[in-house]
Amino acid sequence: MNAYTPTERSRVKRLHERGKYDEATIFPILDSAFIAHIAYVIDGQPFVTPTAFWREGRTLYWHGSAASRMLRFQEGGVPACVAVTHLDGLVLARSGFHHSINYRSVMAFGTAHLVSDPREESRQLDLFVDRLYPGRRDDIRPNEIQELKGTTVIAMEIEEASAKTRSGPPKDDEPDYALDCWAGVIPISQIVGEPIADPKLKPGVAFPKRLAGYAASNRLDSLLLENAEALVSPALA
Amino acid sequence: MNAYTPTERSRVKRLHERGKYDEATIFPILDSAFIAHIAYVIDGQPFVTPTAFWREGRTLYWHGSAASRMLRFQEGGVPACVAVTHLDGLVLARSGFHHSINYRSVMAFGTAHLVSDPREESRQLDLFVDRLYPGRRDDIRPNEIQELKGTTVIAMEIEEASAKTRSGPPKDDEPDYALDCWAGVIPISQIVGEPIADPKLKPGVAFPKRLAGYAASNRLDSLLLENAEALVSPALA
Repeated sequence: MNAYTPTERSRVKRLHERGKYDEATIFPILDSAFIAHIAYVIDGQPFVTPTAFWREGRTLYWHGSAASRMLRFQEGGVPACVAVTHLDGLVLARSGFHHSINYRSVMAFGTAHLVSDPREESRQLDLFVDRLYPGRRDDIRPNEIQELKGTTVIAMEIEEASAKTRSGPPKDDEPDYALDCWAGVIPISQIVGEPIADPKLKPGVAFPKRLAGYAASNRLDSLLLENAEALVSPALA
Repeated sequence: MNAYTPTERSRVKRLHERGKYDEATIFPILDSAFIAHIAYVIDGQPFVTPTAFWREGRTLYWHGSAASRMLRFQEGGVPACVAVTHLDGLVLARSGFHHSINYRSVMAFGTAHLVSDPREESRQLDLFVDRLYPGRRDDIRPNEIQELKGTTVIAMEIEEASAKTRSGPPKDDEPDYALDCWAGVIPISQIVGEPIADPKLKPGVAFPKRLAGYAASNRLDSLLLENAEALVSPALA
């Protein structure tokens, strides 16, 4: 698989052994996440906005109302930085200094711009639904023209990206292992709860079988990654 | 309680009925979170970095190695934007257009700068540990001088902030309620797993009773908020 070439902008400097630049590391971290944080600059002022996103190949996409300040600003092509972060665990060490967290994160750089072709916009919005909710487009009504007109899709080809991860137990100073102090990892994950049917749900309509990945107590990151992999290799799904 | 006065920078424009500016809304969203995403600008290029953070009063703090590129850049006083986001649920509607997410988010603006007084730096790092791990400072060894020297704490007084939230069921177009399409909310939350003891844990050392909030299957946001509230009102803890 390909790798990004780190520059001054994207090279992981601190704890550089935690940094990786290959797509085989970066793409699954992206595809396991629902939310990205997108940074951009207006008149020298930094902004960061959380938003749902998706990926096709080397390009990240996000969307929103055509009236959105962020999206209107990004339409023309502006530098952006996208962060995706999974908090996997709290690492409790025997000194404050060595406390840490386990995580998987990606920082991606590129130029955000409008997806202006209406057919490509529509195709990307379908891809977004398919990534999240397999089979759902068979159940919902199709998009209407004015809905597509009221929606903006932004694309950012990844020019550079780095992944940074930590896993495993704490690393303490040698003498501290003798302390009577609990140390280890408290795992954290995003978990699915019991679906709550809309109070206005038509009687007799069941939760879709094709959304079985969203069963209560499943991990969100695992099921999103499975959805993404099934889209790319449907024969294996 | 006080409220922030929104300006062009922080006013929630899209779906403005979801926007709030009062500390009673903003502070609990911050205090329930472990990770913030911090945006800053270097030579016109936006960056966004995920990091653990904490709050005292109207000021947000984060920390890291004194060698960190982000922190070294922020020491001198630079404009920053801090986003904190809780994904609470996936909202499945009867059209693609009305799919949404339930969330609680805060966007805060201010000027990041170094905490230069060593005593204040030390006090803030203690506060950080106390916020996360009640009673833990009794168990771990104290910080060493060279550890404090190797650590940078950054402070950002919140000049402006807005909260944006969504909760509840989907809102569909009236005719779509007749469709044979499941609709509702799939709840998502950050959940604690079974603690994993360090393989090098001294035999006989038990998981601390004062960290009982981190019991498996507890919600991370709830327990962090409880920790924060207990710090402010210890008599009630």
